[in-house]
Amino acid sequence: MRFIIPLAAAFVTLSLSALAQDAPPDIHARVDDLVQRMTLDEKIGQLNLIGADLAINGDQVQRGATGALIGFLDTPTMARLQKEARDSRLGIPVLIGLDAVHGFRTLFPLPLAEAASFDLDLARRTSELAAREASIAGANWTYAPMVDFSRDVRWGRIIEGSGEDPLLVTQFAKARVEGFRKGGLAVSLKHYAGYGAVEAGRDYEQTPIPPAELWDLHLPPFRAGIEAGAENVMSALTVLNGIPASSNRWLLDDVLRRDLGFDGMVVSDWATVPGIVKQGTAANDADAVEQQIMAGVDMDMTSGAYARELPALLQSGRVPMARLDEAVRRVLTMKARMGLFEKPPVDPAAADKAAVTPEMRAAARDAAARTFILLRNHGNLLPIRPETKRIALIGPFADNPLDQLGPHEARGRADEAVTIRTGLTERANKAGAEIVYAQGCDAKCETENGFAAAIDAAKSADLVVTVLGEKMEHSGEGASRATLDFLGRQYALLDALIATGRPVVLVINGGRPLDITRYADRIPAILMTWFPGTEGGNAVADVLFGDIAPSAKLPVSWPRSVGQVPIHYDRVAVGRPASDGNRFALRYLDQDLAPLYPFGYGLTYTGFAYSDLAVTTPSLPVTGTVEVRIRLTNTGQREGTEIVQLYVRDEVASRAPPMRRLKAYQRVTLKAGQAQDVTLRLTASDLGFHLDDGTYVVEPGRFKVWVGTNSDATLEGSFELTSGLRRATNESGGP
Amino acid sequence: MRFIIPLAAAFVTLSLSALAQDAPPDIHARVDDLVQRMTLDEKIGQLNLIGADLAINGDQVQRGATGALIGFLDTPTMARLQKEARDSRLGIPVLIGLDAVHGFRTLFPLPLAEAASFDLDLARRTSELAAREASIAGANWTYAPMVDFSRDVRWGRIIEGSGEDPLLVTQFAKARVEGFRKGGLAVSLKHYAGYGAVEAGRDYEQTPIPPAELWDLHLPPFRAGIEAGAENVMSALTVLNGIPASSNRWLLDDVLRRDLGFDGMVVSDWATVPGIVKQGTAANDADAVEQQIMAGVDMDMTSGAYARELPALLQSGRVPMARLDEAVRRVLTMKARMGLFEKPPVDPAAADKAAVTPEMRAAARDAAARTFILLRNHGNLLPIRPETKRIALIGPFADNPLDQLGPHEARGRADEAVTIRTGLTERANKAGAEIVYAQGCDAKCETENGFAAAIDAAKSADLVVTVLGEKMEHSGEGASRATLDFLGRQYALLDALIATGRPVVLVINGGRPLDITRYADRIPAILMTWFPGTEGGNAVADVLFGDIAPSAKLPVSWPRSVGQVPIHYDRVAVGRPASDGNRFALRYLDQDLAPLYPFGYGLTYTGFAYSDLAVTTPSLPVTGTVEVRIRLTNTGQREGTEIVQLYVRDEVASRAPPMRRLKAYQRVTLKAGQAQDVTLRLTASDLGFHLDDGTYVVEPGRFKVWVGTNSDATLEGSFELTSGLRRATNESGGP
Repeated sequence: MRFIIPLAAAFVTLSLSALAQDAPPDIHARVDDLVQRMTLDEKIGQLNLIGADLAINGDQVQRGATGALIGFLDTPTMARLQKEARDSRLGIPVLIGLDAVHGFRTLFPLPLAEAASFDLDLARRTSELAAREASIAGANWTYAPMVDFSRDVRWGRIIEGSGEDPLLVTQFAKARVEGFRKGGLAVSLKHYAGYGAVEAGRDYEQTPIPPAELWDLHLPPFRAGIEAGAENVMSALTVLNGIPASSNRWLLDDVLRRDLGFDGMVVSDWATVPGIVKQGTAANDADAVEQQIMAGVDMDMTSGAYARELPALLQSGRVPMARLDEAVRRVLTMKARMGLFEKPPVDPAAADKAAVTPEMRAAARDAAARTFILLRNHGNLLPIRPETKRIALIGPFADNPLDQLGPHEARGRADEAVTIRTGLTERANKAGAEIVYAQGCDAKCETENGFAAAIDAAKSADLVVTVLGEKMEHSGEGASRATLDFLGRQYALLDALIATGRPVVLVINGGRPLDITRYADRIPAILMTWFPGTEGGNAVADVLFGDIAPSAKLPVSWPRSVGQVPIHYDRVAVGRPASDGNRFALRYLDQDLAPLYPFGYGLTYTGFAYSDLAVTTPSLPVTGTVEVRIRLTNTGQREGTEIVQLYVRDEVASRAPPMRRLKAYQRVTLKAGQAQDVTLRLTASDLGFHLDDGTYVVEPGRFKVWVGTNSDATLEGSFELTSGLRRATNESGGP
Repeated sequence: MRFIIPLAAAFVTLSLSALAQDAPPDIHARVDDLVQRMTLDEKIGQLNLIGADLAINGDQVQRGATGALIGFLDTPTMARLQKEARDSRLGIPVLIGLDAVHGFRTLFPLPLAEAASFDLDLARRTSELAAREASIAGANWTYAPMVDFSRDVRWGRIIEGSGEDPLLVTQFAKARVEGFRKGGLAVSLKHYAGYGAVEAGRDYEQTPIPPAELWDLHLPPFRAGIEAGAENVMSALTVLNGIPASSNRWLLDDVLRRDLGFDGMVVSDWATVPGIVKQGTAANDADAVEQQIMAGVDMDMTSGAYARELPALLQSGRVPMARLDEAVRRVLTMKARMGLFEKPPVDPAAADKAAVTPEMRAAARDAAARTFILLRNHGNLLPIRPETKRIALIGPFADNPLDQLGPHEARGRADEAVTIRTGLTERANKAGAEIVYAQGCDAKCETENGFAAAIDAAKSADLVVTVLGEKMEHSGEGASRATLDFLGRQYALLDALIATGRPVVLVINGGRPLDITRYADRIPAILMTWFPGTEGGNAVADVLFGDIAPSAKLPVSWPRSVGQVPIHYDRVAVGRPASDGNRFALRYLDQDLAPLYPFGYGLTYTGFAYSDLAVTTPSLPVTGTVEVRIRLTNTGQREGTEIVQLYVRDEVASRAPPMRRLKAYQRVTLKAGQAQDVTLRLTASDLGFHLDDGTYVVEPGRFKVWVGTNSDATLEGSFELTSGLRRATNESGGP
């Protein structure tokens, strides 16, 4: 097996010292001086984030009429625009932002896929590498990470987050902020707040969230990102409980600044100002601008409305000059803290040399393999056996360099991507096996014209590997789905391949769990590869051939059908559980209640047994650390990595507790037959919940604990908290 | 056409004078006297609602150890138990409650179906008649109406409510309370509160509801029912925002008594006490009893836990004696107000004579026909033409007297039900047509063995009427669904019938919109009949032959697929509407965003044109009445009834307003070619919304108004409110 190469060491450290949280006196002095010398137009310009096209074709940067821009530009253009800014009257550098979500030129797996690794170092590392590529190329800001909490796999942007578990979402928020910043980009924690709760998974819909749920699930990742140094927060373009998030003063001022401790700059999402008018809480752009800036949004993304409306609003006093100055100071402080005033110009030649290097490719390959989830492996069909001599590779995503990149492809290039066909052919050849490829159908899969060739190929082979799933634009923003079906004629292709009688490995390229329920017992092997990125093909080959064993686990429950959504493992217990054996119980009459695969589920090429659970801290105060030990045994024939998961339930609480919540996990690699004691630890003060007013409470009493291979873990113990705590929202350190 | 017979007049008025809201001095005196003389056991007994079996087989009633019972008993048994109660030491009558939801022996349509009539008189009348049958038989209390607000058609109990529109839900709550009470039963408004918001439509799941939404959508029907004189409220068995509704003191005390003005008795739902323990907020039954009674639940349904646990809780002071006495007083006051102490014994002979009378049947037949929704009628296939001589009647629900009754069948009897086969045969014979019947498959439809005969029958006929849908137990409590599919092989049967080339009328028997999307353009006529009840078959014949024209309208959006759920017409506008023509807009990429049929939709056998909208009150204060006039023209060849609907949108509000909300409607019957001006009125003070704290606000400003045939109405006008209002939760009169 291959393990990760420590790539960071291969780079000159570009980390900007000024990314530190504090603003030393010289920053204050610099900002004071600038604000004093700025004209009204220049101040308003700093709050005006424009599209890249506008920046290229206009003179806004030159004349200081914009503080920031968004878009994917080439390095010479970014260099030119930055030079124009530095040469402008006040020499204020421009923020050059872009959605570097999972890479810049080299594409890593998407965030949800990385969450499946349960590996924070991986996310930190890929974020850092993505930021380096982008930063060397001239960008200085990424509109990432998205830390929205969601349980609805219909929502396209679920791929941009970290799944249904509050611990993972919060930890990955922190890891990505750290990574991006270390790589030289400022971050934008988004979307503040609640965007992940869009009704029925329809992107942009209203987000109804009860207050305690907002505090428990949606705000903690923002707190974590802020504590990790996030320079910026982006306001959501959705309506939260009746109020547009972008004009919600309680959310943006009371909660964000007082309770979550944010002192940086807030930018709106794309064109929120006209959005607020459409949402019906403002009569026109001027009202919406007033509402938004007075609520606390400092910078206006792309609507141009701050630039158009602020002069009159300031003149009439509807927006006080002090609020303008505050917003300008926040923008300038962010730039100064980032060191932009001192940053040397970018070197286009260096940017090109730093992109898609062998080291970047190695990291992308390793990261991808660590995100693949083995959902089924009947009869140990995988890894591919030495005696397999002919492999039919079939499907619209088997040799599709574009769609494997996934949404938010940034400047990723199809011609730089290694497809599964390429990767698998190279690896098969080494093993003395032959790949026979037939597309079957293109990515839309609208006809069955290519099925006959695919069936012939399958019949000629020892093993069929078929790659089905979603196109890049079937996932991500604006890509909500009402079904979880493979689109087009893909199911028909799969049926035809199964009908050949050859063993079929289904590889799924896509941004969400898809509906495979009626195949889950019929296909011997299923591997979820998400959108595996630039090195996807090599990573798939690594895993299919067993050079790397799969080790990822589901960061979302895999529903049996779309009708189960939202489904999540941390539901609240009901008064009528199905176990009562009664018709009047929690159930669906036409389908099992359980998802097809539970949260935390994932197989590997060996087996693990759990035993001997011991809670070594059976009784402890809230200041203590819970320790739970289990014995883990590799029961199979190969080395393998298990993600040991610990779940907790508060037995009795003043708010109905989730049936269980993930509270700790650990990656453990064991050789065949090896056994090891594994100790998991969790901070007792993390065992609480929020009240409606945001107060955080840990209650003393008994807690159940389970340790196992996924959220259905049955090995059980318990412990007693002998004391509790109660913390107001604005006291630091709460989850 | 037939119109409703005024049945109420045919009955001796049994309405109990003591059902009045006020408690005159003699009631207080009687209650005081009783409480003074009661032993502790007798007091606790009054709070102990037991199952009917227990009452029959034990001596609880005789010894005053129970105050109420639940279940379906025959009249002699109810008479005996009531006599035992009256002969007990203190002679306190017993509450005999049952779920008379849509009838007792004679079954009317279910509540959701009745909501489709947009006819409050109909619901008032059927509730009254149901109550009379039950009351004459010996019952005195119904566990109805269910007034839970729900937008999730997966939830089985959606059939027991009045759909997705807050106005309908509230108005039907009031109408049913009035009807049941007039018919001689006390009511139980249920389930307080929030039960309709169960996550993913899974019955008994938690109900996350933001506060303003609770005030806007879920509480108004309770307020309306209380104002209409509801004697009793039933607490929900679900967890509302972290707290079991049944132990939620804020909900049951602050809101229910202070804000909604309820002064009656609160009963729990079935076995909520052990439910609270399972939900994790109480360690054991004693804790749960303490929580529940101290929160305000006076009577314990069937758990027996009050009887077991209260003695010790009272002794230890965890429950004060004053709280016990308060609960007992509420129970006794309810009984006294209902006149139970004076009520003469029931007469079993009279009960039998009053059941399923011709008058009851006529009312049931008329009510059913008024709830059928004509979803499609391509080429005016319906009503059945005189030249149609041979009709194939096919399907598992065509001659199925049990399943047409629907859930909550009370003492309804299959042998008293008129099936579609019976009703249609009789009517066809009158028209000189022949019915050829083939079942196709039984209600589970697990085999295709009967398909050949059905196909032969279809091929031999001029017209095919096929009745597909849901069994009674596929709807109602504990009947949540993850799909909206016709179960078993029903789609295959439909496909086979379509393949015959004969014109097909699809009649749907069921409790929710089912998935007919891929048939909606292929089947010429589709009629939703819900569960049509005892006289269902005659009503279907009346409508198919045009003796009664369909006039009902959808009380819920009919989704294109289960993946759209929850979908509702009164969504909040988004900042990225689909009309922007942009990929980054509100949409599903794999399905249309709109439901298959919108809320308020329904056809009839003629057509209507809307024109000349005039807002006759273009500007008015909040104390005024908005008047909107339109001209309605019957453009077809037959008399017909239209439900004219008026929708309003607050153009700009401090909370994002729904895109539109139904605010008025009117049934209008016009002869062929006739035109008439129709004026709709709405009280301006009903144009408001709630804040999180329950404050009700009407804001001045401009409102848009649309009038039309369903919620997609396009005929538009506007008016201006020149003043607003603001009302605290505990001021009376708010919506």
